[in-house]
Amino acid sequence: MPLKRWLVGNPLKTALATHQRLSKRLALAVFSSDSLSSVAYATEEILLVLIPSSLAFAHFSIPISLTIILLLAILTLSYSQIVFEYPGGGGAYIVSKSNLGEWPGLIAAASLIIDYVLTVAVSVAAGIAAITSAVPSLFPHRTVLGVFAILIVLLVNLRGVRESGKVFAVPTYMFIGAMLLMLAVGTYQLLFGQLTPVVSQNVAAQTAVESVSLFLLLRAFASGCTALTGVEVISNGVPSFRPPEPKNAAITMIMMALVLGILFFGISTMAYHLEIVPKEDETVVSQIARAIFGEGVLYYLIQASTMLILVLAANSAFAGFPRLASLLARDGYMPRQMELMGDRLVFSNGIIILGVFSCLLIVMFGGDTHALIPLYAVGVFLSFTLSQAGMVCRWLDKRGPHWQNKIIINGIGAIATTIATTIIASTKFMQGAWLVFILILVLVWMFRSVHSHYKAVVDQITLTRDHRPPLPRRNIVVIPINGVNQAVLRAVDYARSRPGEIRAVMVDVDPQSTARIQIQWAQWGCGVNLIALPSPYRSVLGSLIDYIEEILEKEPDIWVTVVIPEILPAHWWQGILHNQRALLLKTALLFKERIILTDVPFHLKK
Amino acid sequence: MPLKRWLVGNPLKTALATHQRLSKRLALAVFSSDSLSSVAYATEEILLVLIPSSLAFAHFSIPISLTIILLLAILTLSYSQIVFEYPGGGGAYIVSKSNLGEWPGLIAAASLIIDYVLTVAVSVAAGIAAITSAVPSLFPHRTVLGVFAILIVLLVNLRGVRESGKVFAVPTYMFIGAMLLMLAVGTYQLLFGQLTPVVSQNVAAQTAVESVSLFLLLRAFASGCTALTGVEVISNGVPSFRPPEPKNAAITMIMMALVLGILFFGISTMAYHLEIVPKEDETVVSQIARAIFGEGVLYYLIQASTMLILVLAANSAFAGFPRLASLLARDGYMPRQMELMGDRLVFSNGIIILGVFSCLLIVMFGGDTHALIPLYAVGVFLSFTLSQAGMVCRWLDKRGPHWQNKIIINGIGAIATTIATTIIASTKFMQGAWLVFILILVLVWMFRSVHSHYKAVVDQITLTRDHRPPLPRRNIVVIPINGVNQAVLRAVDYARSRPGEIRAVMVDVDPQSTARIQIQWAQWGCGVNLIALPSPYRSVLGSLIDYIEEILEKEPDIWVTVVIPEILPAHWWQGILHNQRALLLKTALLFKERIILTDVPFHLKK
Repeated sequence: MPLKRWLVGNPLKTALATHQRLSKRLALAVFSSDSLSSVAYATEEILLVLIPSSLAFAHFSIPISLTIILLLAILTLSYSQIVFEYPGGGGAYIVSKSNLGEWPGLIAAASLIIDYVLTVAVSVAAGIAAITSAVPSLFPHRTVLGVFAILIVLLVNLRGVRESGKVFAVPTYMFIGAMLLMLAVGTYQLLFGQLTPVVSQNVAAQTAVESVSLFLLLRAFASGCTALTGVEVISNGVPSFRPPEPKNAAITMIMMALVLGILFFGISTMAYHLEIVPKEDETVVSQIARAIFGEGVLYYLIQASTMLILVLAANSAFAGFPRLASLLARDGYMPRQMELMGDRLVFSNGIIILGVFSCLLIVMFGGDTHALIPLYAVGVFLSFTLSQAGMVCRWLDKRGPHWQNKIIINGIGAIATTIATTIIASTKFMQGAWLVFILILVLVWMFRSVHSHYKAVVDQITLTRDHRPPLPRRNIVVIPINGVNQAVLRAVDYARSRPGEIRAVMVDVDPQSTARIQIQWAQWGCGVNLIALPSPYRSVLGSLIDYIEEILEKEPDIWVTVVIPEILPAHWWQGILHNQRALLLKTALLFKERIILTDVPFHLKK
Repeated sequence: MPLKRWLVGNPLKTALATHQRLSKRLALAVFSSDSLSSVAYATEEILLVLIPSSLAFAHFSIPISLTIILLLAILTLSYSQIVFEYPGGGGAYIVSKSNLGEWPGLIAAASLIIDYVLTVAVSVAAGIAAITSAVPSLFPHRTVLGVFAILIVLLVNLRGVRESGKVFAVPTYMFIGAMLLMLAVGTYQLLFGQLTPVVSQNVAAQTAVESVSLFLLLRAFASGCTALTGVEVISNGVPSFRPPEPKNAAITMIMMALVLGILFFGISTMAYHLEIVPKEDETVVSQIARAIFGEGVLYYLIQASTMLILVLAANSAFAGFPRLASLLARDGYMPRQMELMGDRLVFSNGIIILGVFSCLLIVMFGGDTHALIPLYAVGVFLSFTLSQAGMVCRWLDKRGPHWQNKIIINGIGAIATTIATTIIASTKFMQGAWLVFILILVLVWMFRSVHSHYKAVVDQITLTRDHRPPLPRRNIVVIPINGVNQAVLRAVDYARSRPGEIRAVMVDVDPQSTARIQIQWAQWGCGVNLIALPSPYRSVLGSLIDYIEEILEKEPDIWVTVVIPEILPAHWWQGILHNQRALLLKTALLFKERIILTDVPFHLKK
């Protein structure tokens, strides 16, 4: 398959697998893009909840952002403990399963799977929004652009993880740099009064001051929590780090949290001071950048790097999802195919499935970030909660040095994430979170079904003490023929290649042709016995089957091999021109014990 | 298949075939319904051409009907000669092919096939029209009713020909009786002035007298020629008669022509005297019957028996089409499957194909007789012409007693049908006849393609003088395994049932599991050699294929049998849960010479 090779590269040897590890710098590019990129939409989602109620509520975005950053700090601390405790990769699935049991583990896995798919969809939709903010003429094509972006990420990932790291390091650091520059320039301009608030059309219209409701604030908090999605990605990916894996992973995670906190707080503050109102066709970040840099090169740099890091965020899910699927497959909760590495040392099946489902979401939701957000974050926070709760149980059970301190850290994490999950689930329930709960139930049910099927298979094929190695048995070879030709001769040639009893069998439909075939057989039959079966009904098939079943009845301990001379046409559409007798015979004999079918194909050239 | 048995009955022995013959009385019921039933629409079609031009033209229907009856006489005489000359069945295909050559034969066959399908569609549509004339509330459902009627006829025919005869004898004679009664009563009423013309809404509107054009008369004649469709059916079905077949067939044909002539002339005359104008929702026959019998029992008897004989006409095509298809298949112009008799001594495949295509026509043309008519008759008359021309050539070639007389009879037939064909084709060309010509070309092209494919196959598989019976060759059996379990053991058991070299082969993906399998193999392997292949790339499949190809390369004259232990799930949807390795392996090895694949299935119970 030259096309496949050109697209995904040549196969890599297994021995190369351990070299495919990431330095901290590359790992930050691969694993942190999910978190960092969420600053592109998190502030906007908070404002989208607050401002439609009243412009006067916009200032609540600052305390809400600070609360989310506090939550980020708690999570980062909690997760560093997990990284050290699970150097083999401590995703929510593993942590919950090993400490809380099978069901919580499966619920965590289901939540994560849903969120991986949503990460791809949301990130790509937001990335495309960054582009269409800069180039408004592309706005109507955002669905197609989104699907196209996913396909590119899919291909890059099928090529393998190290190349992904290399490809993506530059844009990640470009994004961080550009954002920091924007915030620095913006702060300077604000301090020296060079920056004036963006005049919005809506400002004049809204003047009535209403009192803020707690529900509104909680909903704004819930929307902002999307900023924290992706924090867990590193804990899943510990084995991809260079040794010592846990330490490198923890350092990378803290770095990531720092950058994320700074960017998120900076953008929220800047949006507040510039009095920015979310628009349908331009993102908040784009409005900020336009206010600070005008329409110059730096503005486009911000938009381009935002788009790129969002695509990287999608990529981060492509690194995480197949790993999780592989773990689930290894434990027998997903089809076995998911476990295998492809020939480029990546889990090809998982990558492809993720690509397909996220494309579906993009198409279903018309490539609109805001429409996808209510589904997002519920699953992530559910898995956060399960992980932290699992760690608390672990310390209670295992103890070890400083276990009290550790239990406090994970305990605070567990309590904080439980509260956040409850807030997110309740404020977003009607807008889509209900769907996520249903999907989690469905996925858990699927995991259980797959698991019990595999268990049933093992029970049925395992060799026990009651089994004995089989004693040698006889084998009668039957070759059904309806003429003497090269295809039949080939089947006879094959059957004769091993010693044993061989019988060519024909059905006597018409005495004349039977006699002719018998004469030809004398010349060509290689001494194989030819039996002509009577056929009172014209059913050739029925007579053959009766004959074979008779053999089986007479000798209850032999095999019967039916060697079928099959003429295979050169083109598939010619198949209709040949009697489907071979097919019918095979279908009729397929489910009989002790009958083994062997096709000896004779390939036509034209 | 109990459902199949219940629907089509138990299989019949071949020895019963000769007893499945028809007496003249039954044969008339089976074979004449096509012709006789056409009186239900032929008169109407003539009037539909004449009356829209001017009501004053209605009287032309009488001379046109007489011309058609003259043509009927010529055809009947011509065809009786064919029946005697071709006692094995002398359809247009056989007569044209044996006397005029392959191309005319194939054109005749294509014309007949198209007309068989149209006979079913037109007859059923007209039969439903008879019903909806009596019960107008059914008019909107005529398409569904038509499809339903075809399905019933299909089933009856799959049960076999003798039962068809029995089932259909009563309604045919009921139709003839009812029609003759209607014409007799009508004539009596006319003579004694008890019958007054039907008052039509259109009469007042049309008063202008126009001059009749020749084209209009020819078009009316062409439409009326549909009365003659079905005359040839008996000549195709000679072998279904009791011996002496030709004589019985000829007598039946003359009887049929007599009845047809009387009914057709009677209805045309009656329609003229009653000044009947065709309506969209009531047939001409229904209007005549209503005028003569009122709304009583006899009116409904006429409508019901008309419907029944039209369904029988459809049935007549079901008797003829599969026979023709079988002849074509025997000569290699149609797929071989068409040649075989089903287990009820009927040609099941042909019957099913005819049913499907005629249902399609009914649906496409909305169950409207009048819309289908322009397609009809062109093919029949083309095949009439080819038959008669073929017979002329035959007498010229063969001579024999009274050959001059015979040549005159068939010559007149040939000239008359040539003229009729030309008239039909030219006057109906734009209304649909062009489609028939295209279909004929397509069918002939298909016949030729099928023929040349079969010829190519024979050329490729025939044993010639250059061939020698094959010398004995070696056979190495390879059993790919990935563990030791009951499924693998079953494959080893099978492979050992014939002597020879057997190698179990595994791919060493992970040294630990390889070691475990080797230990288990020592206990369960029945002494078969186990080879562990290295796999630098994780592709199990690739390593296996490389290994097998190596064997073939080293020894260029052996067979390799790949015995695949295949776990078959109890339910199809479980298939997704098993590695598709067996399938992939089979796909990869399918088109290699000297590799023979053998599945040893292990069926899971749950």
